[in-house]
Amino acid sequence: KYAPMFEPLPAIAPIPGNNSLTPAKVELGKMLFFEPRISASGVISCATCHNPALGWSDRIPRATGHDGQVGDRNTPTVLNSGFFGAQFWDGRAATLEEQALGPIEAGIEMNMPLEQAIARLKEFDEYKKAFAAAFGGNGERQITEANVAKALASFQRTLNTPNSPFDRYLQGDLSALTDQQKRGMAAFADNGCLACHSGPALTDSNFHAIKVPGSTDVGRFAVTGDEADRHRFKTPTLRNVAVTYPYFNNGGTATLGEAVQVMGREMLGREFNKRTVDDIVAFLHSLTGEMPDVSIPALP
Amino acid sequence: KYAPMFEPLPAIAPIPGNNSLTPAKVELGKMLFFEPRISASGVISCATCHNPALGWSDRIPRATGHDGQVGDRNTPTVLNSGFFGAQFWDGRAATLEEQALGPIEAGIEMNMPLEQAIARLKEFDEYKKAFAAAFGGNGERQITEANVAKALASFQRTLNTPNSPFDRYLQGDLSALTDQQKRGMAAFADNGCLACHSGPALTDSNFHAIKVPGSTDVGRFAVTGDEADRHRFKTPTLRNVAVTYPYFNNGGTATLGEAVQVMGREMLGREFNKRTVDDIVAFLHSLTGEMPDVSIPALP
Ligand code: HEC
Ligand code: HEC
Ligand code: HEC
Ligand code: HEC
Ligand SMILES: [Ca+2]
Ligand SMILES: [Ca+2]
Ligand SMILES: [Ca+2]
Ligand SMILES: [Mg+2]
Repeated sequence: KYAPMFEPLPAIAPIPGNNSLTPAKVELGKMLFFEPRISASGVISCATCHNPALGWSDRIPRATGHDGQVGDRNTPTVLNSGFFGAQFWDGRAATLEEQALGPIEAGIEMNMPLEQAIARLKEFDEYKKAFAAAFGGNGERQITEANVAKALASFQRTLNTPNSPFDRYLQGDLSALTDQQKRGMAAFADNGCLACHSGPALTDSNFHAIKVPGSTDVGRFAVTGDEADRHRFKTPTLRNVAVTYPYFNNGGTATLGEAVQVMGREMLGREFNKRTVDDIVAFLHSLTGEMPDVSIPALP
Repeated sequence: KYAPMFEPLPAIAPIPGNNSLTPAKVELGKMLFFEPRISASGVISCATCHNPALGWSDRIPRATGHDGQVGDRNTPTVLNSGFFGAQFWDGRAATLEEQALGPIEAGIEMNMPLEQAIARLKEFDEYKKAFAAAFGGNGERQITEANVAKALASFQRTLNTPNSPFDRYLQGDLSALTDQQKRGMAAFADNGCLACHSGPALTDSNFHAIKVPGSTDVGRFAVTGDEADRHRFKTPTLRNVAVTYPYFNNGGTATLGEAVQVMGREMLGREFNKRTVDDIVAFLHSLTGEMPDVSIPALP
């Protein structure tokens, strides 16, 4: 009865027409993702905050970046981010390509002017080769902001987590979920969570008004200036949510049980009893899939 | 003629009698090596500075740690560190076990009191299981400073880089070195570099007085208080030296060519001509071995 309401996660994220997914781009994107020399300190890379050992996130409330500065928002996982229709908590980037250059420049993240990042990469023959392999022609001339973004986006499109117990259940293995998880799945659907957490990544990539505990962030209002967007945030994926604690835009909620109660109360005007919370939490644990098997690149 | 003066690198480092090398200890040590929750900021792990993508070092002159503070010394690689008879530039730890807890507490590195680090680990069931698997008995009670050190040391003993072109040459494949590299090997031996850079890791693990460009560090004097030890530093390994730039205790020397010239001048009172420098540098490049194939652990 419930299975048709959900979608299993495809092994690969949708690929845009203007950035074909090739092994050479993915390999280059991986190098750039682990590359700290495109940060002002020389020690912060995408993988610092989106740490593969920590569910490709950081497990602290709010991101710590350049010079130990603490930002305002919780670091989302980049796992399955190719399935999102908008990037960042406030959706200020539409695609992974648009998103990729932001953190390099952000003063609180990697704090490096893009021209300098590009110049730094041009110092390495290996990068010239890798950009030529990915984009053809003269490698040095291919080291551009647009191509850095394309390579990072391509790499991230491969960071997906198929074959979770939930996916195996949807694909016909009815024993892949425990009875408690099945009750949780039913409660998730019956209570209306699916209104926002839908589709293969369990997000509508849309924006909804909420004030989670401790949050003062205006959310999407900062992007659009539209009063209707005040305190609206992008629905986050629930894929791998058990390993991407703490929760919400400010990382202010430590456990899944608390997060589920907040959702019931704020989004659905409902106070769940302990059994329902536990069932839904058990269900959310079934959304943890196989982590991508990424070997650490040897950088030049 | 020269081959008998050198030793190929064994695949595994010597194992001390009081810390047998088991897969369970290595696996636990790997988790701890990548574990940022044993740092005050929650974001710095051993792998931050000893970055697997950067030759298990950081490729900046002096280490950047807690809150972006910059230390006094260059981060040595931990590759092949099980072969060293002393740890740190000043040898203040004799073994990897003695060495391991220093960086967790050091204010400028991970800045976390050890009791707190131990308490943090005890919060995770997965660590209780991993310590029980590695050390037997009650997992929680096995989460001790001594066992953290043993596990980290065990993991690091597996981080070796055999099968470099140089090793293949020593094992009989005479074509593994270029002619220039063979000339460099001869110059290395004939000029007396082997006096200090000897044995399988090309270090005598002993201390020698030198003032490298820009260095004001008193070196081993800070450990012994002995005037004779002023400005003495441990001979660093030359294994993988091509990928562990920049050079010397202060990271003040950018290229291998310059480092070789400094060595000739300061250690041997000799001014090498350009050809000799180039030959030795070519030889040093042949010391880069196979990087260990370490999968990133999924931390709890
Ligand atoms: C200092 C920590 C830090 C660094 C470094 C960092 N990120 Fe992020 N990342 C964050 C935070 C925090 C957010 C959320 C910001 C927001 O929504 O305003 C984020 C958001 C994202 C998102 C959007 C995910 C979503 O669910 O909306 C992607 C994709 C991403 N980062 C990729 C990258 C890439 C690629 C790099 C390197 C070029 C990088 N990040 C570097 C902390 C970091
Ligand atoms: C009206 C839309 C909407 C509904 C309905 C909804 N959610 Fe959410 N959910 C969101 C938004 C938006 C956020 C992010 C809020 C924030 O961080 O400020 C979120 C966050 C979460 C989080 C935290 C995820 C993370 O990584 O931080 C969990 C868990 C969650 N929802 C589960 C549920 C469950 C379970 C239900 C049903 C009981 C539910 N949601 C119903 C929109 C919704
Ligand atoms: C903030 C950077 C940083 C962190 C974090 C760090 N190290 Fe180091 N490591 C260094 C520096 C710098 C040295 C040299 C210090 C000295 O000689 O005084 C060093 C030295 C070492 C050595 C000695 C190698 C040699 O050739 O003598 C080993 C082994 C080592 N670290 C392992 C570790 C382990 C294990 C951890 C985590 C528990 C760790 N390091 C965390 C920067 C760091
Ligand atoms: C008397 C002992 C001694 C002799 C002889 C010697 N070295 Fe060294 N070598 C050292 C010491 C000690 C250091 C570290 C000095 C410092 O960083 O302060 C070092 C550092 C180096 C480094 C930098 C390694 C790094 O990772 O930072 C290179 C390269 C090197 N030596 C090559 C050579 C060559 C080539 C020769 C011969 C021409 C040579 N050495 C002769 C003791 C010696
Ligand atoms: Ca970001
Ligand atoms: Ca989170
Ligand atoms: Ca170095
Ligand atoms: Mg240290």
